[in-house]
Amino acid sequence: MISGEIKFRVRYSQIDKMGYLYYGRYANFYEAARVELFRSLGFSYKKLEDEGIGMPVVSMKSKFLHPIMYDEMIKVKTYIKKIPASIITFHYEIFNEDEILANIGETDLTFVNLTTNKAVRLPRKLQEIIKTNFD
Amino acid sequence: MISGEIKFRVRYSQIDKMGYLYYGRYANFYEAARVELFRSLGFSYKKLEDEGIGMPVVSMKSKFLHPIMYDEMIKVKTYIKKIPASIITFHYEIFNEDEILANIGETDLTFVNLTTNKAVRLPRKLQEIIKTNFD
Amino acid sequence: MISGEIKFRVRYSQIDKMGYLYYGRYANFYEAARVELFRSLGFSYKKLEDEGIGMPVVSMKSKFLHPIMYDEMIKVKTYIKKIPASIITFHYEIFNEDEILANIGETDLTFVNLTTNKAVRLPRKLQEIIKTNFD
Amino acid sequence: MISGEIKFRVRYSQIDKMGYLYYGRYANFYEAARVELFRSLGFSYKKLEDEGIGMPVVSMKSKFLHPIMYDEMIKVKTYIKKIPASIITFHYEIFNEDEILANIGETDLTFVNLTTNKAVRLPRKLQEIIKTNFD
Repeated sequence: MISGEIKFRVRYSQIDKMGYLYYGRYANFYEAARVELFRSLGFSYKKLEDEGIGMPVVSMKSKFLHPIMYDEMIKVKTYIKKIPASIITFHYEIFNEDEILANIGETDLTFVNLTTNKAVRLPRKLQEIIKTNFD
Repeated sequence: MISGEIKFRVRYSQIDKMGYLYYGRYANFYEAARVELFRSLGFSYKKLEDEGIGMPVVSMKSKFLHPIMYDEMIKVKTYIKKIPASIITFHYEIFNEDEILANIGETDLTFVNLTTNKAVRLPRKLQEIIKTNFD
Repeated sequence: MISGEIKFRVRYSQIDKMGYLYYGRYANFYEAARVELFRSLGFSYKKLEDEGIGMPVVSMKSKFLHPIMYDEMIKVKTYIKKIPASIITFHYEIFNEDEILANIGETDLTFVNLTTNKAVRLPRKLQEIIKTNFD
Repeated sequence: MISGEIKFRVRYSQIDKMGYLYYGRYANFYEAARVELFRSLGFSYKKLEDEGIGMPVVSMKSKFLHPIMYDEMIKVKTYIKKIPASIITFHYEIFNEDEILANIGETDLTFVNLTTNKAVRLPRKLQEIIKTNFD
């Protein structure tokens, strides 16, 4: 397994009329969390795109267990639980400022050649980094 | 079953660097689509909140089958497939401008008293409207 | 002068904790409104980008005169008041559902070659359309 | 004058089809920057709202001097240049990762009683904090 964690401050623009973090914003935190997990492994998602490979999301699941409020400093834990082949799955746990588990998420991503828009295999460099760091 | 459909123009602000509708924006279309389904039944979500009842999302699933591009006029079909008790489930199908099924989604929502933040039962008026229109 | 108007429903995702349309979302309505003004003249902003010309915003001003609330059907009036040279200026007036002027905005946009990222002149086709429709 | 600075990572969800930070997202950075400036002075905007006072934006200006790209670590410098009376003005300078000045912004905010929606004077505590820290 590979894991990492990162904190984010919840901003006014992300809070809805009920005073909760809007359910559509969790995807943004997932995105930032998985990119930071990659960065912590020495892998840059930006560089991957610069080299012509993108990682579109093909599936997402999210359970909203507890509301998250304005100005909370939340913690996102991100996991890769399986060495990926053509699909890479990230798992997320979001904790509110009181360390209550507020959200559980999961996203599946594939790899595409950004010029041809065709699916490609997991880039070798990423594969090696994941294998090396997996435990 | 209850169903409805609504069209939306995809805007620049919703498109990501890959040129695709960003995966985090689908939740916004789901929200607008279920509110419009309610409106088509003569039920106003706004009025529900004004009367002190909110409908937070407790679970979401989404499958991204086909990219949606800038300026496409998309069609969202929304379904209530089961008469709800304490949870109401909406199903969504999003078609791109060429009528290709681009996304399938599902959201579960509950009902809360916005003052006490406690769960409440499905409001009677909504229950009746759903029962009357269900086929 | 060239002008047009378009209506939008204000969505839950756009409303902030105060219950108002979040001040950062007005830019999105400006964007949609100017693209629709172009469309009403028979000019497609999407096609312009497909042909390699983009229109980045270089300046924006906005005055928030009156709050806009959830679920309101707002009206955006958009104006081109001067035949553009290298910069095109759009003016916006947003009216809430009670026809109260809620926001006044202004954006300046330029034209860039999306491959070279260099400024280019106003595309001839757009120039002709504006001149033809100007009164 | 009062000033502060804060860094933000630019996320995928904030980048548009041109590859630039979408012009409508700058308002979000302004919001986060001014709240952090307050926090650095020992003043919590969240607490202000909890006590029933909100700070709606009444005017915004923004000049987009240089595009900001995906994954850049940007720096926002925020200034209060004048001791506020009923309106508080924040000035912003956003620098891209290469320390190029990419954006200049300005927002005016007022103070409202969140229950009555009526304008109120600058809260005394905030006034004192600003006066104490002004130089």
